[in-house]
Amino acid sequence: MNYMPITESMFLIAESREHPMHVGGLQLFTPPDGAGPDYVRSIVQRLRDQDEVSTRFRSRPADPVGILGNLWWTQDKDIDFEYHVRHSALPQPGRIRELLQLTSRWHGTLLDRHHPMWEGHVVEGLEDGRFALYTKMHHSLLDGVSALKTLERSLSTDPDNDDLRAPWTPNRSGKKRASGGSSLNPLSLASGALSIGGDALGLLPASAKVAVQAFRDHSYTVPFEAPRTILNGPIGGARRFVAQSWELERIKSVGAKVGATMNDVVLAMCGGALRDYLLELDALPDQSLTTMVPVSLRRDDDEVGGNRVGAIIASLATDIEDPLDRLIAVRQSVQSAKRVMSDLSPTQILALSALNISGLAFSPIPGFVSVTRPPFNVIISNVPGPRTPLYWNGSRLDGVYPASIVLDGQALNITLVSNNDQVDFGIIGCRQSLPSLQRLIHHLEDSLGEMEKAAS
Amino acid sequence: MNYMPITESMFLIAESREHPMHVGGLQLFTPPDGAGPDYVRSIVQRLRDQDEVSTRFRSRPADPVGILGNLWWTQDKDIDFEYHVRHSALPQPGRIRELLQLTSRWHGTLLDRHHPMWEGHVVEGLEDGRFALYTKMHHSLLDGVSALKTLERSLSTDPDNDDLRAPWTPNRSGKKRASGGSSLNPLSLASGALSIGGDALGLLPASAKVAVQAFRDHSYTVPFEAPRTILNGPIGGARRFVAQSWELERIKSVGAKVGATMNDVVLAMCGGALRDYLLELDALPDQSLTTMVPVSLRRDDDEVGGNRVGAIIASLATDIEDPLDRLIAVRQSVQSAKRVMSDLSPTQILALSALNISGLAFSPIPGFVSVTRPPFNVIISNVPGPRTPLYWNGSRLDGVYPASIVLDGQALNITLVSNNDQVDFGIIGCRQSLPSLQRLIHHLEDSLGEMEKAAS
Repeated sequence: MNYMPITESMFLIAESREHPMHVGGLQLFTPPDGAGPDYVRSIVQRLRDQDEVSTRFRSRPADPVGILGNLWWTQDKDIDFEYHVRHSALPQPGRIRELLQLTSRWHGTLLDRHHPMWEGHVVEGLEDGRFALYTKMHHSLLDGVSALKTLERSLSTDPDNDDLRAPWTPNRSGKKRASGGSSLNPLSLASGALSIGGDALGLLPASAKVAVQAFRDHSYTVPFEAPRTILNGPIGGARRFVAQSWELERIKSVGAKVGATMNDVVLAMCGGALRDYLLELDALPDQSLTTMVPVSLRRDDDEVGGNRVGAIIASLATDIEDPLDRLIAVRQSVQSAKRVMSDLSPTQILALSALNISGLAFSPIPGFVSVTRPPFNVIISNVPGPRTPLYWNGSRLDGVYPASIVLDGQALNITLVSNNDQVDFGIIGCRQSLPSLQRLIHHLEDSLGEMEKAAS
Repeated sequence: MNYMPITESMFLIAESREHPMHVGGLQLFTPPDGAGPDYVRSIVQRLRDQDEVSTRFRSRPADPVGILGNLWWTQDKDIDFEYHVRHSALPQPGRIRELLQLTSRWHGTLLDRHHPMWEGHVVEGLEDGRFALYTKMHHSLLDGVSALKTLERSLSTDPDNDDLRAPWTPNRSGKKRASGGSSLNPLSLASGALSIGGDALGLLPASAKVAVQAFRDHSYTVPFEAPRTILNGPIGGARRFVAQSWELERIKSVGAKVGATMNDVVLAMCGGALRDYLLELDALPDQSLTTMVPVSLRRDDDEVGGNRVGAIIASLATDIEDPLDRLIAVRQSVQSAKRVMSDLSPTQILALSALNISGLAFSPIPGFVSVTRPPFNVIISNVPGPRTPLYWNGSRLDGVYPASIVLDGQALNITLVSNNDQVDFGIIGCRQSLPSLQRLIHHLEDSLGEMEKAAS
């Protein structure tokens, strides 16, 4: 047994039937030419035969029942592969819609703590002949970014490589460990902030002072000033998951027209889509929605690369109707927040990020979300993914859509992955608070289309 | 909002991720001649359109989060039918095995308390063209027997009746209410025993005295004297579900040879199968396993029918190798237990049943199952089902297999339904404690076969 640090056990302690604390990834594949009707079944069988399992994928809480017992990890020697690797199928007519419905159901159920806390679902029956892999992993084992890296590591750049690698196979390639990118993940930042504990306390007033000064230039967004929306109430246990890809080129060329980054354009897309979505439900507040977004703070004059990451809060400019004005407002808000952070030391950045994220830490406290203003309205994470086409046993990866965690007060999470020449959006929401979530996909397209039209 | 009696709220309070408190039913259907590829899909659509919903199927706990809040029911006006009625499919090759795997997964996940607490899964993709309906209902709303009655009520004796009735449609036929048979259900008996509370306390010593006297004739089985087995440890959250039908005629003719009832033969089948199952795992105790089984106590000289039901504990004679000797020992044990009860008044019967069942009430107490001997080893319930062939929208009902509840200390539950000319067994177990549960099905067949051979 191994001691479990609070940064891991917090996800077990905070978990309840309304707040599952697992992350998911939905990967979509096109099988190679000549794949027969048994292709998917053979993949399931070959995955189950991969019985060499890394420590992480053999870990479960030593005492699954008690909260105090959750402080130790134990590693299972025998893995029940028939339990963990699941073969599934879509009902008629086998559209992406049926796939997303199934993923929504899976993402809304708790992982069993008596088994290592992960599941892999291989799905056949898409009408166009493709297949999917939905992987579900507990956040105490692996954060969202690491989970995506782990999935990516099992793929190959070689379409002819038929060495079917499983995500749980121990890493011997000497590649960077999967947890390398974890600091980009908001919940990891939250746990990092918690773990610095007392140290951060002394730093908070200093960085808060910096933030308040910056607030005076009106483009800096401070936490706990977000409007109340339907995105920010208590949540239920059921989920809606929707996903879609957009061409990276479209996003980049809109950005190039107004000097905005790819991240700015994506945030403006989300702002426009959320504006339309809330308008349709007659639930758009006058004040703009805000987003908490992890950003890279690396500057051109940095001598060593390093990993300067912070969590900023930015405006989504949902109070602005004009698409280009909205994009420019988002860009200004992001730049202002980055400017504040880039003048700080790495420890100060962590402390200010902790202040920005701190609202999340209160989510498990009953009633907290109903008496305070939201710290921000929605988390939008932009995760770097593969830069070249990838293959799995000869099957081409067509998309990878992250399904993250929603919380009381944060009923929506948008996570996107830049994947080769496209950007893959994975959107998870509380089923009860957020009706017709699939409308967001149409609104995202409309929002991008309007920016393209206005910029041309 | 309505006040929730303790007999209902106890199932919400006792529920945890390791102990889901829902009951399930798996129904298997053969579609009518000429049913097209869209047949199942059209059933799903027609079910979702049945928007008249009885109070029971609109009920959920008013405050789904707090334990204290679970004392009130609230009724939802708008039902999210896309959430409750789920269209699913089996992966290749679409055998009964794949159907049972899927059912096992569904039965191991918690119902969302933010929705009325039921789900219906319509499953296509069986290789033989049949389809299935798995229905999952929370025990606080409906016990297992009532759930089966509710499913049965939506069927018709007329193969040409294409009026697709949903289980949640309000009952206007004037038929007896579904809860009529509920007292045959062991968990309902347990809640009944709890609800009589103080009254029963005064009665217990008297009936315990009767039981102790009967114990002296050596064929009466008392609670808390069962051997420790792998069936009686703490459980995890994952489940295994297996199911099979046997011809009623085979069971009856074995019974006729030795003057045993259909229930005696079924218990002896289970005894023989559990003996073989535990022998294979090198886990058979010397002392015989015992079962808690609800029985009808109506005697021939009863003037009025009435519903005299008691919960007895009987030996499964797993210490006896010879199949006919085992059947005779089971019959004696059941008769002895019934004799004790039949001399009692209805209130005394309830009190003695409460004593027999009382072990279940301690299951939620942490550590209880590890320090005491089990009250009995396994619950086996025999539920009367339809006596004639039934149809649903022209589809013939081929089998109805109950999936009940397992608890700490009771990792296995066998529930059988007499259905027309067959007996349908539904067996649910804790996935972790009970490996290869599908072996039980083969052992049940062997056990019946051996009795037939010995009796011929």
